[in-house]
Amino acid sequence: MKTASVLTISDSAFQGSREDLSGPAVAQRLKAAGFKVVHSSILPDELDQIQARIIECAEITRMIVTTGGTGVAARDVTPEATKGVIERQIEGIPERMRSEGSKKTPLAALSRGICGIRGKSLILNLPGNPAGATESLDSVSSLLAHVLDLLDGKTGH
Amino acid sequence: MKTASVLTISDSAFQGSREDLSGPAVAQRLKAAGFKVVHSSILPDELDQIQARIIECAEITRMIVTTGGTGVAARDVTPEATKGVIERQIEGIPERMRSEGSKKTPLAALSRGICGIRGKSLILNLPGNPAGATESLDSVSSLLAHVLDLLDGKTGH
Amino acid sequence: MKTASVLTISDSAFQGSREDLSGPAVAQRLKAAGFKVVHSSILPDELDQIQARIIECAEITRMIVTTGGTGVAARDVTPEATKGVIERQIEGIPERMRSEGSKKTPLAALSRGICGIRGKSLILNLPGNPAGATESLDSVSSLLAHVLDLLDGKTGH
Repeated sequence: MKTASVLTISDSAFQGSREDLSGPAVAQRLKAAGFKVVHSSILPDELDQIQARIIECAEITRMIVTTGGTGVAARDVTPEATKGVIERQIEGIPERMRSEGSKKTPLAALSRGICGIRGKSLILNLPGNPAGATESLDSVSSLLAHVLDLLDGKTGH
Repeated sequence: MKTASVLTISDSAFQGSREDLSGPAVAQRLKAAGFKVVHSSILPDELDQIQARIIECAEITRMIVTTGGTGVAARDVTPEATKGVIERQIEGIPERMRSEGSKKTPLAALSRGICGIRGKSLILNLPGNPAGATESLDSVSSLLAHVLDLLDGKTGH
Repeated sequence: MKTASVLTISDSAFQGSREDLSGPAVAQRLKAAGFKVVHSSILPDELDQIQARIIECAEITRMIVTTGGTGVAARDVTPEATKGVIERQIEGIPERMRSEGSKKTPLAALSRGICGIRGKSLILNLPGNPAGATESLDSVSSLLAHVLDLLDGKTGH
């Protein structure tokens, strides 16, 4: 069973002024998809802290899913933080999330989340609201499992 | 009312050997969408000049729209210039422009324009020909207004 | 007639433990599309070697097509190698390949290949399996011819 971390990235959830509904919703979805969620935490929208936590999580878990900080507001820096700690980017995964999301709302185009690989771990940025986060995850979850198999050397040929 | 700048980027329009039809067409479209166009100018396809002008415009206007220099010809450097002066990129907006444009012509795939944020200003690259420029703008103009609201701290929640 | 190079990038094909079917299939397709294939070679999945060969090929041929190394496995570094030697990227071409490929298999989203320009040459990354490589090439081959015309200064206006 593959391990996963869930990072909620939100100033207001970190300060406790807003309840974190997205983190638990994403964790539940990951469990349903067969992952063992061994780490969950809430971080403020601070690039350095996001990067440090992703690096730690990539050492202990195969899948790191973030929720929040992917928008266009001034404090939204999750994609920039993620870009700085991945070794290789998979453009087609966020492309798919936006294209599927656009069937529900044109605002899906504004989600700037990325997906990439660090070592043998896969990092995925999801939007911050619970519905957007879980729907985005659902639209690519079979791809994620496949990537992790490929990173394990299972070529599928 | 939000302010906008329109930058026509074209060696031939700058030298006066070709009339600039795209700049005025884009400005007219922005006005119809509720923007106050306070700056319009024509620049050659020179990276340094494009960057300097975008930086100036981002200090005085909320929306900077360029037209021209997004293609694949040797002198087309508008996306590279823009990338160097934005702080955060919004991949989904050019993705949407290409995907909508492809319904009309497969050549829409060759438009390399990007979209990004500098401070509280939004910068968007449109293709050089008047029809391509205005149609591309129309396909994302409601998104642009939404981004500017989000940069103002209006979260829409 | 425009010249082309075909680079098969695969550790196993390079070592001779697997026959290179993709390179010849891609070369055949390029010939059918009117290119003169003047160089074909097989390289291991090594970033430095890929970059050196692309640079050499860009000096002697207008179109350089790679096959292989675009996936997510640890040794897949063709896109990273390519990104380091191109001057300008054309995002819409891999976007088109993935979007067309997704009609056949959702795994097309995992192809990380890019497309870009170096001088007057165009470099395109295709997936490693023969069917994926030729289908991806077919989905953009008319665009490639158009890009080469534009790089020659034919504006099409």
